[in-house]
Amino acid sequence: MTGNSLDPYVAHYAVRTQGMRASAIRALFAVASRPEVVSLAGGMPYLQSLPLDALAAEASRLIAEDGTVALQYGSGQGIPALREQICQIMALEGISAHPDDVVVTVGSQMALDLVTRIFCDPGDVVLAEAPSYVGALSVFSAYQAQVVHVAMDDHGLQPEALAAAIASAQDAGRAIKFLYTIPNFHNPAGVTLSLERRGVIAEMCRSAGIAIIEDNPYGLLGFDDGVNRAIRADDPDNVIYLGSFSKTFAPGLRVGWALAPHAVREKLVLANEATTLNPPVFNQMMISAYLSGFDWKSQIKAYRQTYAVRRDAMLAALEAHMPGGATWTVPDGGFYVWLTLPEGFDTTAMLPRAVSERVAYVPGTAFYADGFGTRQMRLSFCYPTPERITEGVRRLGVVLEREMDVMRTFGTTLQPGTRHALGASAPAPDTA
Amino acid sequence: MTGNSLDPYVAHYAVRTQGMRASAIRALFAVASRPEVVSLAGGMPYLQSLPLDALAAEASRLIAEDGTVALQYGSGQGIPALREQICQIMALEGISAHPDDVVVTVGSQMALDLVTRIFCDPGDVVLAEAPSYVGALSVFSAYQAQVVHVAMDDHGLQPEALAAAIASAQDAGRAIKFLYTIPNFHNPAGVTLSLERRGVIAEMCRSAGIAIIEDNPYGLLGFDDGVNRAIRADDPDNVIYLGSFSKTFAPGLRVGWALAPHAVREKLVLANEATTLNPPVFNQMMISAYLSGFDWKSQIKAYRQTYAVRRDAMLAALEAHMPGGATWTVPDGGFYVWLTLPEGFDTTAMLPRAVSERVAYVPGTAFYADGFGTRQMRLSFCYPTPERITEGVRRLGVVLEREMDVMRTFGTTLQPGTRHALGASAPAPDTA
Repeated sequence: MTGNSLDPYVAHYAVRTQGMRASAIRALFAVASRPEVVSLAGGMPYLQSLPLDALAAEASRLIAEDGTVALQYGSGQGIPALREQICQIMALEGISAHPDDVVVTVGSQMALDLVTRIFCDPGDVVLAEAPSYVGALSVFSAYQAQVVHVAMDDHGLQPEALAAAIASAQDAGRAIKFLYTIPNFHNPAGVTLSLERRGVIAEMCRSAGIAIIEDNPYGLLGFDDGVNRAIRADDPDNVIYLGSFSKTFAPGLRVGWALAPHAVREKLVLANEATTLNPPVFNQMMISAYLSGFDWKSQIKAYRQTYAVRRDAMLAALEAHMPGGATWTVPDGGFYVWLTLPEGFDTTAMLPRAVSERVAYVPGTAFYADGFGTRQMRLSFCYPTPERITEGVRRLGVVLEREMDVMRTFGTTLQPGTRHALGASAPAPDTA
Repeated sequence: MTGNSLDPYVAHYAVRTQGMRASAIRALFAVASRPEVVSLAGGMPYLQSLPLDALAAEASRLIAEDGTVALQYGSGQGIPALREQICQIMALEGISAHPDDVVVTVGSQMALDLVTRIFCDPGDVVLAEAPSYVGALSVFSAYQAQVVHVAMDDHGLQPEALAAAIASAQDAGRAIKFLYTIPNFHNPAGVTLSLERRGVIAEMCRSAGIAIIEDNPYGLLGFDDGVNRAIRADDPDNVIYLGSFSKTFAPGLRVGWALAPHAVREKLVLANEATTLNPPVFNQMMISAYLSGFDWKSQIKAYRQTYAVRRDAMLAALEAHMPGGATWTVPDGGFYVWLTLPEGFDTTAMLPRAVSERVAYVPGTAFYADGFGTRQMRLSFCYPTPERITEGVRRLGVVLEREMDVMRTFGTTLQPGTRHALGASAPAPDTA
C-alpha cells in the first residue's frame, strides 16, 4: 500500500509492486538530455564511430531480400546463425560452448530477468557485489529476492567476504539462489576481479551449491589488448553467463544472451516465450550480418581507444579538481569510475545542486539495496568528449567546494542512521 | 521438483518454475516449418503482401540519418512520436487517450507480462474466456495466478457466466485481480463479443472492482469494413488496453503497447525498465515511419481481403470434409476457427497421426488452464494459401475418418476424468 489515495488500484497491486520505485538513473535521463548539462550519469556507448552508411545498406538488404523472415515471428531461443556467432565471441574469453545452450534475449537485462524468474522465490537470497548494477537490483526487487552485498576492493569481490556472507545466510537458514557478479570493468565500481580470485570464488560457490551469474557486457572493452578469461571458461556446469551487444555494438537493437547449463537453458527458452514470444528477428539478423560482414573487432578496438582517452581525461580531471580525502577507482576498461567522497557528503542530497551547476552523475545509493553509498557516486566517461569530461569534473569540483563551505558552517549534511551492517558482508566497498 | 535427476538445479528453482512446460504451439513450430506439412497451427501473418522494397529504403534512411538515435538506448516508455500515432490508431475504435498513458512494449505479450507482474500475487484469480489465448495462460502461470475460465457463445463472453464466476470466487474469499478478454475475433475461439455485452460486462466489472484487460491484436482485421468500438472507449478508468503491430504490420519487430490509467501506467514503465530497459528504438522508429510515410490503412485492407478469402476457403472445406456432429465457429475477422469434434475424439492424442498425414493444428487443451478442450482444436487460416487450406482440411478429414474407424472398433480414445467443473464457470465453450 502506497497511501496514494488518487490511485484506485492501490489495494489491488501485487506485493512485489510495492517495492517499485523510480531509479535515480531514470530521473536523470531527462536531465542528461539537456545540452548544457555535462552528463557523467548515463552508460550510453559512443555510437558516432559506427559505420552508419554501411549498416544502413545492410538493413536495407535484409528487409528487401529476407523481409518475410526478418519481419516474421521466430524462435524463442533466437536464430541459429547468431547463436553460433555468439559462441565464437565467447571463445575469445576461453569459453567452449554449444549454440544449443545459448538463448538470445531482449538485451542482457531480459536474460537477467528470466534467470531470476526461474530461480527466485520471495525471500530467497541473492549475493551481489557492494556496490552492484542498479538494473540488477531492480530485477531482484521485482522478484522479492533479498540482496546481500559482498565487499569488493581493487581486485574485485573479496573471497573472504563472500565466504562470510555465505556462512551467515546459511546459518540463518536462508536459501541462497546465486551469486550475481560483473567480473570485468565493474558497473559501477570500475574494478576487475583478479584471475586468481575467479578460481577461488568459483570453487567456493560450487562447493556451496550456489550458481554464479556472470554478467559480462564490458569484457571486450579492456584498454590493453588482452581479454580476461571468463569464470564460465573453467566452470561450465555452475555458471550462467550473460552477454550483450549493447556496449560493443548498439544498444538500440536490444540484443543480449544467456549461456546456461542445458536444464536451465530449456527453462530460459520457455520463460523467454512467455514474456516476448521471441526476441525481434530483424534485430538478430542485423547483428548476425554485422558480425559476418563487418570488421567488428576493429570497431571494438576503436571503441576501446576512444574510451581509454576519455578515462584518462576523467582521471586527470579528478586529480585536478577533487578535494582532499576523495578517492576513486582506476578502471582498466569499461565505462565507469567510482568516486568516494570524504565523510559528511551526501551525493543524493547534493545532486540537484550539481545539476544547477550543469553536471550530472548517479548517486551511490542507487547501487545498493540497503541504503549504503551515501558518499559515493558513479561517473561515466563513455559518452561525453574528453573536453566535456574535463569541464564536467571541474564543475563537480565547484559543487563539492560549496558543499564543504556549507559543512564547515552548518556541520555534516549526512543523514545518520542510513548505515547499518547487513549479514557478514562488509558495509561498503573500499575501492579507491 | 520435476524428479529429473539429471538436472543439478532441480532443488533450486522457484515455485513458479515448476509450472513451466513446453506449449503445444512451441512443439509445433518445428513441425510447421516442414514444407510438406500444411500448418493450420501458427498465427503468423501473411507478410508477402508488405511493400518490402519501400520498407527497406525506409530502414536504410533511418540508420543513415538517425542511426545514433535509432541504435542508442531510449525511453522506457517508448518514443513520443509513436505513442502519438498509437493514440490515433486507437481513435478508430472510439478510444480517446493521451500519449502520456501509452507504454510501448516488446510485443503486446510483454505488456501482458508486465500487467500481470504488477497485479498478481500467487493464488490470485484471473478471469479469462473459455478457451483463452495460450500465451496469456503461460503468463498467468508464470505469476502463479489461478485462471478461472468463463463460458462463451457465438456472441463472446456470457455475462451471466461472468457474474456467476465473480460471485463464486468472491464467496470463496479469493482476490480477483482482473478479467482478461479478447473481444474481437477471439484467439482461439474466432468469435466477437457483441456490443451490447461490452457495456454489460464493463459495468459488472466496474461495480465489482475488477479491472478489465482488453487484448485487441485483431481489432482492425474485421472482414467487413467496420471497426468495433473498444470496451476502453466507454470505460477509461477501469480498462487496460493492449495493442500490437504484429498482426496489422510485422511481428518480427516485436512492438506492442499498453494503454493504462495513469497510476498503472507509471508502474508499467518501471516494470518495462526492469525487464528490458527500453523497447528497441530502431523498431519503434521503423513503425513510426511506416505509419507516417506509408498507406498503412490500405495495407490493412489488403490483409483483410486476403484473410477473408482464406476464411471462406476454410469454411467451405470444413463443410466438405468434417464428419457429422462436428461444429465450428464462423469468424468475422482475425485468424482462427475453433473446431469442436463429436464426443470421443482426443485432439492431443490424435496430433501425431495428423502430422503423419501432413496437417497440423493446435489441440484445444492448450487454450485451457484446467484440462478442458479435449475434443477441440484451433485452425488458423492466416498463413497458408486457400489451396493449401483446402488440402489441409481434406487431410484432417481423412485423419478423423480413421479415428472414427478406431473408435468404432475399440471404443472412445477420450481419457475419462479430464473434465471437471471449475468454480461457477461453464466447462467448455459452445461456440459452434
